Amino acid sequence: MTKRLCVIGGDAAGMSAASQVRRSSKETEVVVFEMGSDVSYAACGIPYFIAGLVPGIDDLVARSASAFREQGIDLRLRSEVKAIDASSRRLEVWDHESSSSYEEPFDYLMIGTGARALMPPGFELAYPAHNLNDARQLDELIQSNRPKRVVVAGGGYIGLEMAEAFRIRGLETHMVEMQDHVMATLDTEMAVHVEDALEKAGVELHLGAGISQVLSEGGRVTGVVAGEREIPCDLVVAGLGSRPRSEIASEAGIEIGESGAIAVDHAQQTSVDGVYAAGDCAEVFHLVRQRWVNIHLGTIANKAGRVAGLNIAGGRARLPGVVGTAMSRICETEVARTGLSEREASTDGRDYVSAAVTTSTRAHYYPGAGEMHLKMLADPDTKEILGTQIVGLEGAAKRIDVIATAITAGMTVSQVVDLDLSYAPPFSSVWDPVQVVARRLSSVMDSSSE
Amino acid sequence: MTKRLCVIGGDAAGMSAASQVRRSSKETEVVVFEMGSDVSYAACGIPYFIAGLVPGIDDLVARSASAFREQGIDLRLRSEVKAIDASSRRLEVWDHESSSSYEEPFDYLMIGTGARALMPPGFELAYPAHNLNDARQLDELIQSNRPKRVVVAGGGYIGLEMAEAFRIRGLETHMVEMQDHVMATLDTEMAVHVEDALEKAGVELHLGAGISQVLSEGGRVTGVVAGEREIPCDLVVAGLGSRPRSEIASEAGIEIGESGAIAVDHAQQTSVDGVYAAGDCAEVFHLVRQRWVNIHLGTIANKAGRVAGLNIAGGRARLPGVVGTAMSRICETEVARTGLSEREASTDGRDYVSAAVTTSTRAHYYPGAGEMHLKMLADPDTKEILGTQIVGLEGAAKRIDVIATAITAGMTVSQVVDLDLSYAPPFSSVWDPVQVVARRLSSVMDSSSE
Repeated sequence: MTKRLCVIGGDAAGMSAASQVRRSSKETEVVVFEMGSDVSYAACGIPYFIAGLVPGIDDLVARSASAFREQGIDLRLRSEVKAIDASSRRLEVWDHESSSSYEEPFDYLMIGTGARALMPPGFELAYPAHNLNDARQLDELIQSNRPKRVVVAGGGYIGLEMAEAFRIRGLETHMVEMQDHVMATLDTEMAVHVEDALEKAGVELHLGAGISQVLSEGGRVTGVVAGEREIPCDLVVAGLGSRPRSEIASEAGIEIGESGAIAVDHAQQTSVDGVYAAGDCAEVFHLVRQRWVNIHLGTIANKAGRVAGLNIAGGRARLPGVVGTAMSRICETEVARTGLSEREASTDGRDYVSAAVTTSTRAHYYPGAGEMHLKMLADPDTKEILGTQIVGLEGAAKRIDVIATAITAGMTVSQVVDLDLSYAPPFSSVWDPVQVVARRLSSVMDSSSE
Repeated sequence: MTKRLCVIGGDAAGMSAASQVRRSSKETEVVVFEMGSDVSYAACGIPYFIAGLVPGIDDLVARSASAFREQGIDLRLRSEVKAIDASSRRLEVWDHESSSSYEEPFDYLMIGTGARALMPPGFELAYPAHNLNDARQLDELIQSNRPKRVVVAGGGYIGLEMAEAFRIRGLETHMVEMQDHVMATLDTEMAVHVEDALEKAGVELHLGAGISQVLSEGGRVTGVVAGEREIPCDLVVAGLGSRPRSEIASEAGIEIGESGAIAVDHAQQTSVDGVYAAGDCAEVFHLVRQRWVNIHLGTIANKAGRVAGLNIAGGRARLPGVVGTAMSRICETEVARTGLSEREASTDGRDYVSAAVTTSTRAHYYPGAGEMHLKMLADPDTKEILGTQIVGLEGAAKRIDVIATAITAGMTVSQVVDLDLSYAPPFSSVWDPVQVVARRLSSVMDSSSE
């Protein structure tokens, strides 16, 4: 008997689930409701579009609406789901085209509503860089108003990448970060290397005070106030984080987790049978913190969406969880982290030991070798790795994947020292940098246990 | 009471052990005998010296003889150990400086005699590229004779890197490989991508017939005969592999393994108590093949030498083993492998399934994205990954480390699909290439079990 899957949201999580069901189950009808006009786009690519490295905004679309339709997915754009009736298993859909609403029944539901950019009061004239519409507007504004000075609010991943984009585009670029250092996901001693890279890239940093006011004249931005300072500018872009869009689920009586995102199990099912959620709007299990968290990354959305799809199609897939891996780049400098930072370990009340090294991205004699800073944390009792942070030049950041894998496998620090990792002079020293920091941490643990 | 450690061989394994003992045990006297004039050098850097990328040969020395002496190591150059008397615990040493021999007692012995380049009969006029002396001679020859056409014998890692070096130096470069394809450590479908890269780099390939004769006139090379062909040239460089230098150990009654290298346990101890061996001359345990093998790589020599040193200093270190990881590069193309190739799996009588994909080194829209080919093997019963091969452009090869780590941890293919790996558009697609091939292999296994 034919079953009907309705999917709310046509980005990474929603379309991964829809495609997976389409592939795995011929009998399931798949209907996707997307409130905007774009599907399956790479929000992570927005900074590179703004920088001018990606020729057109359509290049950021991984797969077009028509490709999904050809696959047999009933994809409805500008169709906003206003309410979920979990007991009668019906959706209330608002069609922005015809300005009318209708109801749609479902057997299975997949919620992939994503997140919204955090825009505090007073930021009405600031621009987010959250979806393709934001990107279009921002690009149009830059082309029409020709701003000369931009303030990037927030020194996280988006802020970092947008700052690089504006520098490439030739704008005088300021970054305002409320905390004393950029990149709150890194410990201070690692964040300062990112700050060096930002300054080297020509970004002026204003740390330790957030933006209290966006100044304007006649609807045009003229500057911002950050602490005691006034920074004149003609454009403000906000990278202040994002919040899960979980209201529609909450209103339907679906359980919301402590993080404010939709609570799910490892099969991506919510508290309501047959109703799944994945991506930025849902929680995901953190294998190191051993609790459910809410992290907004495309990698997680794709994996979780796929697992939801496999299960809706009758499979028994489980997403074990994440370990907090993330990476970014500011010009030549790469940044990556996985597991717990010292700050997170403290917050969680975890006992830890740590070590840091500065090493080289290549063999010492090979031309073009650059600095690479690593910091590693471990549990002093089990000796298991808790987390690692890397800041360095070409080839530095992707090494975090070795540690993400090791943490997932529950490896100890000395097991990483023993790993049979690859080596050639253009790529590393004979001990890979992740093993250099592991050896240092191993010594620290040995001497502290004597 | 002071104990004396004698170390035979002053390269990676020997000096790692010596340094480790010097650091960990103040009471142990450390004497190192090196038959040549160089210590602790990076043989892997020789191609880059020949290419002219590394200014001087001394740049390849990781740590100078005087630095080791300052550390308190009694380092004796041009001192060749001719015999080991394991029962009386004495060495017979030939001093090349004074042309005289003497005896030296030891409490502990560490054998790090390395390997010698394989030079078949008839190759007397060919040059190896095995140690710094070879490199010096080769460089001098190129400067004095100004050869125009070089034949590289052997299409393995050394052959690949030497071919690149000669192309950089502007020589017409031919590669002769006895087998039908280069890179015997890769399966054919992957090796052909390396052949494409060699041809793109301007290297002329001669496959399927080895060199039967090196032609010469008046002591100068004029060409080689390979199968039916005669290839004129004025320089022949051999990268035909290497053999462990285990004779001295064998003659002392120390057990030699099936591979022809010195048999050791996971503590690096040989069949004689207190006598250790590590590096190219010794065996190492292959965690996937579950047997002792002999692999000549600096990474293994450094790790095994360190473990030997820790144990000589009274520790209880163990080297679990290796998984067969190796990498190389030919111009822009990176090559890496770990675990078992299809050929090795067949040789070992292992059941396997495999899948291959071609994907991209970056997000599809990010400029400069290049092709990347991956092949993965798994055990059809346990679903554990058996091996992976990668050939691709910038950033491709180092990804092998994720799989080396996963194999070491005994991960299944679907556990790799679930890994929380890092992502940013300049570095990968949202599913890392190692996960793309793992997903493909997962599908193959699912459909074959249906």
